[in-house]
Order: sequence, then structure tokens, then C-alpha cells
Amino acid sequence: MSLRKKSLPPTPAQVLSAFKKTGARIETKGRVPLKKKEALALYYTPGVGTASLHLAKYPEDARKFSVKKNSVAVISDGSAVLGLGNIGPYGALPVMEGKALIFREFAGIDAWPIVLNTQDPDEIVRTIIAIAPGWGGINLEDIKAPECFEIERRLIEALDIPVMHDDQHGTAMVVLAGLMNAAKVVKKPFKKLNVVISGAGAAGVAIAKLLKASGIDDLILIDRGGAIHKGRKDLNASKQEIASLTNPRQVSGSMRDALHGSDAFIGVSGPNLLTAEDITCMAPRAIVFALSNPVPEIMPEQAKKGGAMVIATGRSDFPNQINNALVFPGVFRGALDKQVTEITEASKLRAAHALAALVPIPTATKIIPDVLDARVVPAIARAIR
Amino acid sequence: MSLRKKSLPPTPAQVLSAFKKTGARIETKGRVPLKKKEALALYYTPGVGTASLHLAKYPEDARKFSVKKNSVAVISDGSAVLGLGNIGPYGALPVMEGKALIFREFAGIDAWPIVLNTQDPDEIVRTIIAIAPGWGGINLEDIKAPECFEIERRLIEALDIPVMHDDQHGTAMVVLAGLMNAAKVVKKPFKKLNVVISGAGAAGVAIAKLLKASGIDDLILIDRGGAIHKGRKDLNASKQEIASLTNPRQVSGSMRDALHGSDAFIGVSGPNLLTAEDITCMAPRAIVFALSNPVPEIMPEQAKKGGAMVIATGRSDFPNQINNALVFPGVFRGALDKQVTEITEASKLRAAHALAALVPIPTATKIIPDVLDARVVPAIARAIR
Repeated sequence: MSLRKKSLPPTPAQVLSAFKKTGARIETKGRVPLKKKEALALYYTPGVGTASLHLAKYPEDARKFSVKKNSVAVISDGSAVLGLGNIGPYGALPVMEGKALIFREFAGIDAWPIVLNTQDPDEIVRTIIAIAPGWGGINLEDIKAPECFEIERRLIEALDIPVMHDDQHGTAMVVLAGLMNAAKVVKKPFKKLNVVISGAGAAGVAIAKLLKASGIDDLILIDRGGAIHKGRKDLNASKQEIASLTNPRQVSGSMRDALHGSDAFIGVSGPNLLTAEDITCMAPRAIVFALSNPVPEIMPEQAKKGGAMVIATGRSDFPNQINNALVFPGVFRGALDKQVTEITEASKLRAAHALAALVPIPTATKIIPDVLDARVVPAIARAIR
Repeated sequence: MSLRKKSLPPTPAQVLSAFKKTGARIETKGRVPLKKKEALALYYTPGVGTASLHLAKYPEDARKFSVKKNSVAVISDGSAVLGLGNIGPYGALPVMEGKALIFREFAGIDAWPIVLNTQDPDEIVRTIIAIAPGWGGINLEDIKAPECFEIERRLIEALDIPVMHDDQHGTAMVVLAGLMNAAKVVKKPFKKLNVVISGAGAAGVAIAKLLKASGIDDLILIDRGGAIHKGRKDLNASKQEIASLTNPRQVSGSMRDALHGSDAFIGVSGPNLLTAEDITCMAPRAIVFALSNPVPEIMPEQAKKGGAMVIATGRSDFPNQINNALVFPGVFRGALDKQVTEITEASKLRAAHALAALVPIPTATKIIPDVLDARVVPAIARAIR
């Protein structure tokens, strides 16, 4: 019997037909009446002049009475869109628009997609700083590693509004939440898990750092060159940092070498990298998060055949969907409401714990809340301080 | 008896109270349902991947199924906000947000305010080019002269979406429409009008060029140094161009000198520059457009006392409000619907004629349609090609 629990994903023809029919998936809406001259005089000229003079003098009040109060720019350069790669700003636009829709529908946030026709980190940083004053937050998205690390770091330093690269931290928070509950299911102490992460891009690096911060020491990251360890000569700066933070046993070699005896596999890399046989060499009651989308590193049926006990994917048509949409709406909801200027490591850890706690008795097919669970956004929002 | 036809503008306290109560005046709204997993799979992941691959291959289809279809960025650097001057991005934000609201309510356009924390023309151009791919149009606003001219020109050259600096062209179109009808009221041939324009900034220069393009030759622009003529040594590049295009009689000297015997005064400069006595030296049946906001160059009562026959202001509490909101929503409605890539001089002239034609029998107190007249947006939109 298939593990699939839902109908197949929509076909390309169904998607294009639906998108053509709706045009944009998000639009603007006025929040005040504008049908009479008196309303125009109040909310537009000449009334608006009073608000302008006030905000020129007290810019911090923009968070009280302007779009800055509740808005997030969803920004991408299109350099690493979904699993599709560097497909540019127009390729990125549907994803950013979709995220803006999720922000609105899940968290009541006014988000708008902004796609950039530059992929130069300096230019991206300069552009986002230039447009920042009117936004309450910046959600970076689908920007490739290692550039994404520097871009995010510089923006966090430069701006007084929260900036988060969701591919990194959104993914890391959901993975951490899922892994905490998966450890309960397989009855192994969470901090003692021996974890292999396939993919050392934006998501892989952020997952490694957050797992490390949450107490897991035995972590190995794998990139195209195999296990990342201090002896590797081909590592860029972010991977050198990873080499110094992870792989305490200094495992070298292939994915198979790293997987040997491991408790958990987390794939944020690419389709069809593993076979059932690979899973058999893991420790008993293995945890497999095959998160590559739309085609996972290993299909759930195969992982199960190899002996995995808890299996998660990024897809909605299998159980245990590890979906960033569980996190990013609540993170920004909390940040906007509390005027938090930075999403700290402590907030990320609290958010992951809050998410995991929504499934108090996890099972092999239920380690994480459903993305449509209305408790999720408030729980995450409360965790952001 | 006062000429005022409405209650006084709202007090600053009333405005701040209303703005604080509403927070943002505009928000986002989803256009598709997102309550079920199937909808998420179609409109977000994995469905969105199909749309992304399609737009990466056919970027022009972004105008069919993405926010680019119906969106306008309302962008300012805060260097020349209303009549308030250089009050920066936060000072500009309420105005841009108000324009976004007008775009939505009057023309069904998804506009969003973007305020810049740079006032360097190169940086502004670079930033707007960088964020352009996801937008259907760019409305520049409240950027000071002469920088606004170069910024707009360079963006029009660089981008394949319509870019319009509304302070220039929106104002010019409404003034032209009003002046055509005012000429009928005073029974003088439009093209023979002898016109003095006070203010050689963004609006004054654009008004002069559009009036010239519509057939008026006897135009004099006044700046702080008096009448602009070829003999002036203190003119920047845009004013030198104006000197070569206007003032055929090479009038020099003060405002009073220029006004002597003129048929029409158009003020886009500052408060309280004229007295009733200044108006008395104009030709009989004078036309006075005192458009400085909120305090006009001369109050309507004084202009009337000086003998003016048709008087217009920028204010909603007097007859004949010359308001850009009569034009910019329809201009972008037409441009978006017809995928017009540039707002040409011919389109601007047609738009002004279309606006004037909505008042077929103008009178001294009715030369221009009301800003809430539902016929305005479609009439302007039809004129844009």
C-alpha cells in the first residue's frame, strides 16, 4: 500500500490553467472608506500632510500608523528557486507571490513579492537597504549559498527591522521541531542523535547550526564532495565554519560512509540520492527527512523498505510535511506585533519547541502539526521575543 | 460670502487620531482560497513550481499570471513631499500610502508605497531598476527638481514598464484640462492664451512643456530669480531648456512684470505670493490657478477681488480642484490594461482632452470633473495607448 495520503499533486496543465484564470494571487485592499470628499480630505490631501510632518519628526511612529506596522517584503534574486535552481527574477516571482499569499491568509500580514534583477550581493544589500523604510520586516527567499549568508548578515546589521532568510531559518526551525518529536517516536534521547545532513547550502548550514544550538553534537554535513570535515581543502568560508562546528568524529568519505550507524538523515539536497539499501546501514529505528522538493532524496516507500521508522518529506501528499509555512508566518507575526528588530537564536529555538509541543504525543506519521492547524501561527508568534 | 463650499479641512488632531485608529490605510488580500491542502498544493507548493518554470522560460507571461499584471510601485525619496519640502522617506510614507489607496479605490490597481532612504539619483535609478521585474508600472512621486527629470528619463529608457513622475505629468495633464475649459469660460482662444507659470520645479516645467505641446506659445515661467529668459546666467540645465522653449517676448523681471496683461496665472510654487492688486494688472477675465497646497499662492476671495473670472486651487474645499487624483489612476489603468510600456506625450494630450470633455459646458465654478466622478478613470484609461 502506498504511503501517499492525498491525491497526486496538480498537473502542470492544471496549475497553468488555474494561474491564468486568477491572474495575480494577491491584491491590495483599502482599509478606510474613500467614497466622500470628507474622507479624501482626511485620508489623502490635505490631511495626509499632518501625518507626513508627524512621521518626519517621529519616524518610529511609522510602526503605528502606516503600512510599516504590518508589512513584510518577500524578496528574492531568483538564484536558488525551490529545487529548480537559478531561474532568475521572473521564475522566482510565483513563489514570492505565493509566500505573500500565505503571509496574508495564515497570519494577516501585508506581504508583497519583490524580485530583483541583480544577483550581486553588494547590489542586493544596497537595494534592500534603500527600500527598507516602509517595511516592517524583510523575508529573504531563494537566494543561493554562500551569498545568502553574507547578504542576510549585512542586512541584519544595517536595518532596524527583522530580516530573515527563510530557506535557512524557517527550514531549520521546522526540521528541529520535527526531529525533536521524531526522537520521541523512536525513543532515543534527542541530544544523543547522530545526524547526517545531505546538502550544505542555505538550509543545510542553518539546520546544522540550529541543531547544534539545541544540543546535538554528532552532526555530519555532506556536500557533493562527501562528508565535510576539517581535512577537506575544497571548502568555501561557510563550509569551513561548518567543518569546525560539526563532525566531531571527523568522518570522511561518501554519504554511505557517513550514514553508517546514524540515527537520522536530513536531506535538503536533491532528488533520488538514496536507495533502500542506504537506509539499511543506518542505526535501528532510523529517522529519514527527505525534504528535496518535489522529488525527495528517497521516496517514503523505499525509506520504509530500508527500515526507517519515521519518515518526513516536504510534500503535502505524504505524512509529516516539513513545510516552512509552519513557521515564517508566525515568526513575522510575532516580530511585527512586538516590534522585534532581530530574530535571535533563542527565538528560533523557542519557536521550534513551541511547534513541536503542538503534537504532544507524536507518532510515526504525525510528528508535526498540519500546516492548516490554526494553533500554529499564534504559538510561533508567542515564541518570538 | 466665502467661496468655500465645504467644511474646513480636518484639524491635525483629527488626522492623527484617524490615522492611529486605522494603522495602515491599505492592506493585502488573497484572491484565491487557501483553506484546504488541495488549494495549497495548487497555489503554493508544489504547484507554484510549474508557474516558476513557465515564467523563467516566458517572462512576458508575468503580465498574465502574477502580481505584475495589475501592480504599481509608488516610489519616493522624500525630497519634495507635498509643499512640505525635503522631509525624507518617513515623511513621504503617508503620501505614498495615500496614493496606493487611491489607486486601489479609484482604479482597482494593486499599488504599494516604497520610500527610499537615499536621495542620490544614481542610487535611486539603480534601486528602482533592481526591484522592477515584479511591477506592472512605476509611479514616481515627490522627488525634487531637477533630479526628478534625469531619474525619470533614465528609468523610462531602462525599463519596459511605464514610469511616470506624477508631480510632473499628472499635474500637467489636469492643469491642461482645466485651462482648456477655463479658456471656454472666459471666451478666449486657448492657443492664444498668454500664460504665466509660477514655479519652475517638477510641476512647472512639465506644465510648460505640455501647454507648449498643446499649442500655447506665450508662456513665461517664474522662479525665485524672476522670469526665466535666455539672458539669465543662473539657470540649471532644465531651466535653460525652459528658457529656450518659452518666453518668446523675452520678458524679464519680477512676477508682477510677467503678470502684466497676462490671461492666465498658474501657481505651483508656494503660499501667499500674490495679492488682489497683482491680479488687477492681468488682462480682463483673468484665469487664476493657485495650486500651492495647503495654502494657495492667493486665496480665491482675493483673486476674485482682483478681478479673476475663473479660479482654481488644489484644495477640495473650494470649487475647481486641480487634483492629480483625477489623472494618475486612469493613466496606469490604461497602461496596465493595454500593456503600454511608455506614457507618451500624445497619450498625455489625449488624456487631458478626455478629462476636459467630461465637462462639456464649463462654468466659472465647474471647469473640471469632481475627483469622485466615476466617469473619470475609464475616460483617462481609454486615452492611454
